[in-house]
Amino acid sequence: MRYSKLFGKTSFGEIQKGSGFISHQLLIKAGYVRESTAGRYYFLPLGWRVHEKIRAIIKDEMDKAGAQEMITPVLHPLQLWQETNRTNTAGFELMTIKDRRGAEFALGGTAEEMMVDVVRGFQLSYRDLPFNIYQFSTKFRDEMRARGGLLRVREFVMKDAYSFDADEENFKREYDKMAQAYYSIFRRMGLNSVMVEADNGYIGGEYCHEFIVESEVGESRFLATPDGSMYAHEDVAQFQRSLPNPDEPVKEFQIIDQPAWVKTMEDNEKHYGQPRWRYLKNVVYRHVGTGEIIIAGLRGDLDVNKTKLEHAIDAVGQLEEATDDDLIRLGTQRGYVHSWGHPARYIGDLSLTTVRNFIGGQKEETTDSINVNYGRDFTCSMLADIAMAQEGYIAPDGQPLIEKRGIEVGNIFQLGYHYSTKMAGAVFVDQDGKEKPYYMGCYGIGLGRTMAAIVEIYHDDKGIIWPDAVAPFQVHLVSLAGVEEQAAEVYAQLNAAGIEVLWDDREVSAGVKFGDADLLGIPVRLVISKRTKDKLEWKRRDGEASELIDLETVLAKLKL
Amino acid sequence: MRYSKLFGKTSFGEIQKGSGFISHQLLIKAGYVRESTAGRYYFLPLGWRVHEKIRAIIKDEMDKAGAQEMITPVLHPLQLWQETNRTNTAGFELMTIKDRRGAEFALGGTAEEMMVDVVRGFQLSYRDLPFNIYQFSTKFRDEMRARGGLLRVREFVMKDAYSFDADEENFKREYDKMAQAYYSIFRRMGLNSVMVEADNGYIGGEYCHEFIVESEVGESRFLATPDGSMYAHEDVAQFQRSLPNPDEPVKEFQIIDQPAWVKTMEDNEKHYGQPRWRYLKNVVYRHVGTGEIIIAGLRGDLDVNKTKLEHAIDAVGQLEEATDDDLIRLGTQRGYVHSWGHPARYIGDLSLTTVRNFIGGQKEETTDSINVNYGRDFTCSMLADIAMAQEGYIAPDGQPLIEKRGIEVGNIFQLGYHYSTKMAGAVFVDQDGKEKPYYMGCYGIGLGRTMAAIVEIYHDDKGIIWPDAVAPFQVHLVSLAGVEEQAAEVYAQLNAAGIEVLWDDREVSAGVKFGDADLLGIPVRLVISKRTKDKLEWKRRDGEASELIDLETVLAKLKL
Repeated sequence: MRYSKLFGKTSFGEIQKGSGFISHQLLIKAGYVRESTAGRYYFLPLGWRVHEKIRAIIKDEMDKAGAQEMITPVLHPLQLWQETNRTNTAGFELMTIKDRRGAEFALGGTAEEMMVDVVRGFQLSYRDLPFNIYQFSTKFRDEMRARGGLLRVREFVMKDAYSFDADEENFKREYDKMAQAYYSIFRRMGLNSVMVEADNGYIGGEYCHEFIVESEVGESRFLATPDGSMYAHEDVAQFQRSLPNPDEPVKEFQIIDQPAWVKTMEDNEKHYGQPRWRYLKNVVYRHVGTGEIIIAGLRGDLDVNKTKLEHAIDAVGQLEEATDDDLIRLGTQRGYVHSWGHPARYIGDLSLTTVRNFIGGQKEETTDSINVNYGRDFTCSMLADIAMAQEGYIAPDGQPLIEKRGIEVGNIFQLGYHYSTKMAGAVFVDQDGKEKPYYMGCYGIGLGRTMAAIVEIYHDDKGIIWPDAVAPFQVHLVSLAGVEEQAAEVYAQLNAAGIEVLWDDREVSAGVKFGDADLLGIPVRLVISKRTKDKLEWKRRDGEASELIDLETVLAKLKL
Repeated sequence: MRYSKLFGKTSFGEIQKGSGFISHQLLIKAGYVRESTAGRYYFLPLGWRVHEKIRAIIKDEMDKAGAQEMITPVLHPLQLWQETNRTNTAGFELMTIKDRRGAEFALGGTAEEMMVDVVRGFQLSYRDLPFNIYQFSTKFRDEMRARGGLLRVREFVMKDAYSFDADEENFKREYDKMAQAYYSIFRRMGLNSVMVEADNGYIGGEYCHEFIVESEVGESRFLATPDGSMYAHEDVAQFQRSLPNPDEPVKEFQIIDQPAWVKTMEDNEKHYGQPRWRYLKNVVYRHVGTGEIIIAGLRGDLDVNKTKLEHAIDAVGQLEEATDDDLIRLGTQRGYVHSWGHPARYIGDLSLTTVRNFIGGQKEETTDSINVNYGRDFTCSMLADIAMAQEGYIAPDGQPLIEKRGIEVGNIFQLGYHYSTKMAGAVFVDQDGKEKPYYMGCYGIGLGRTMAAIVEIYHDDKGIIWPDAVAPFQVHLVSLAGVEEQAAEVYAQLNAAGIEVLWDDREVSAGVKFGDADLLGIPVRLVISKRTKDKLEWKRRDGEASELIDLETVLAKLKL
């Protein structure tokens, strides 16, 4: 490809550090992508080449793992989503549309219902199982916020796979096979991914894992143990609650005077001079569906993890922090929420049982309670793990937790019987002649996000540094003034040898060409000029050294 | 691929001749596709393999022609379609959607506006031109009727390309290059296409061509001359109006008695015993946008072509045949529409000037006019070519027209300045330093429709007969009972040699396997059984003869 003919060239202007993701800035500046509306992107020819190399690697590994590519329509009949109640659980980010005959559709976000619908149209027997079907297709998410370039978008190509097994035992083999395929996929792209236990959101099922590439800019926060035996997303990471004062004798419940200004955790510390674990803390939520008020109670040194809380009460995606109006309706106000007695559902964190003699729980204008003990003085309707894990907390196996951040590039879900029991006729005939629901899993990778993750990992001050496997071209041929004919000959020979080469044939300065070559990040830069005579200057984008070699040697090196 | 593991197998039941398109029935029965909702299809793994081979051929030829693949978002900001007024002209089949922040989008049907929008974001100079950018993406059409399998759908993958040139002269070279690429694309798939002058619908621009594969079941009706110098869709095909009575003297206009039962063309023939060209004919339409009534007048032996009429009055897609109510509002009724005098716009066909002494034009209960002559007795606001061409009519060059039918598999459009002048900033800086709009073209191919067209052409009573280039597999290996081990070995060796092979490894009868092999239509069937000993029975699906050859010979033949 001649750069002069390429649609979508580099643009001027400095990269602004600290202003948005570096991957976003670099991909725009280098002419790989352009934003249409917020969260919806054009991939320009250069960007699409990278996208398609990522697709080819994923396809290769999926096919090797025995999965079969197919495609579902983008418009899903809405009644399928109603069959599984996902118009409610996923409604917040589901886009729907009517055609002119009044038929209603969802714009596909994930395709569990669609895949089950086509599968149930076949009369499957145990002989047809297992199988794993996947597609690359455009997915839609009606995100409220879409910032961060390709890392958080409203429309993107996803590889989504769905496995159908006779039972859990067979499924687990498939799940493991997919996990291995994912490691291979990301490894081939130069990404060192970790498989992190995660929350399954509105997908359904009992467990799932995210594949995360460690990066400071990542939105996924997860906890790990030093020996790598545990990787868990903050939404599911368990930890041991310490026992800060196990030997303290249980004291008598008391109401004491407390100045009116003592409302927040900071105020309590100032007034009592005691550590945070000593105080009771309450956070109030409202169920957006039912309007019910939920009060989450926990130890003062811990924070609520909303996702854990939602799972505890089976209200995924349904809780919002209470407003001042909600508190007024509850008969209280901020800083005065009681640990008992309000007309609300109380959910306590496991930590409530670890402290002897809490301070707080019944704050009034100038009084509060002390020596409060769970079980004796108050109880919740449920005790559960609803607190956020933090660096240094103790993992279930006794190791200290390390906090990490990363970019989620893929995920795998156990779905079990979630869809096959909700959807009528989602069965196979087993060896015993009986109809049974199949045991399912699903497996996603976002392609644009993976591309952005690669750039987050592989770049320097000058631009992108593509790993060979996903680079838009293998060679960036830079010809300087006065050698047009020789350059054309080298270009022709590289092409003839099957090398993907981008030739900067423009009439611009050497400085501009070198700058653009660094920005674009193609692995090998070949310079031809009057000074290189009958040789070429070879320089890898990921190295510093350059060497003068002849074309034959160039071809030999490229074919390694 | 082992057939036992393939998702999407053949289904039972007879093909019903005459009930819908044979391609639809065969593709369903053989397990290539499944319908989701009317006009929206799943491509099962087998069907997707064919689809992707078609894609690869298109991509290869487009790239060879210098076009560059990229992608646009599926959701187009509606204001872009408003900028070019296509929310009105294409509104009837445009699907729109709002996100939860209230932003409005069109589901992409074609992408002219989107491509111009991304292109105008770059400061282009004449040095950047020409270029041609294309994508494969899902397109949406809110068709009222969607019957006929993949031939008329509401959602499909289209390859759409858009060229940007400095002027018409350069554009014409690109247009011709694309035409040649299209011939190559279809030829490689086994399709003999003809390039037919066509109507440009709501796309805009001045001329366009359809690539049509001749087929009796095709929806496209076109006219050709015996020497192939003219191929024109019925909506644009011109023809010479004969002069049936040039020597007849012009007679005096008269009102004469006419029985009340004489209303239709048939009634006239019965009553007067004159040929059809002798009578005046009027067809009434209503403009769906403005409500205006249009009366199309023409010679009695001709029919109106609505598309021609719409173009004549610049109302593409806007005319509907008048209802009885419309006629009442016009002060008349069916059979009584006058050739003058109604409060309507009269558009006459060129044929109105070819007859001396028409009968009709002022039908009342028991009278009508005769000896009516255009110009003397009535005129229209416009005379234009609004009549349908028919077999045997005379082409502009004097040859008799032949009527043909076919399936439209692709189209190419001159857009000229249609979009670049409607959309602000759609310019490049020319050599003289001035900003000028670019000259555009666009080029589409529907992939699923092409796949169906191939099946319409290539099938027999037993099933599909795929051309090699688009077959889902090259070889259909059929192993009969008792040779499982040898079959597995052959299967492994074929795979190792890079041959795409589908192995029917099921425990079913030879009859079922042979029937399915014929239905699936893979080019080469290889049978291994106790009778074939150390050889294989080779039979091509498109032939009758079979031969016993060894694996080495098989591999040699396949690699030819």
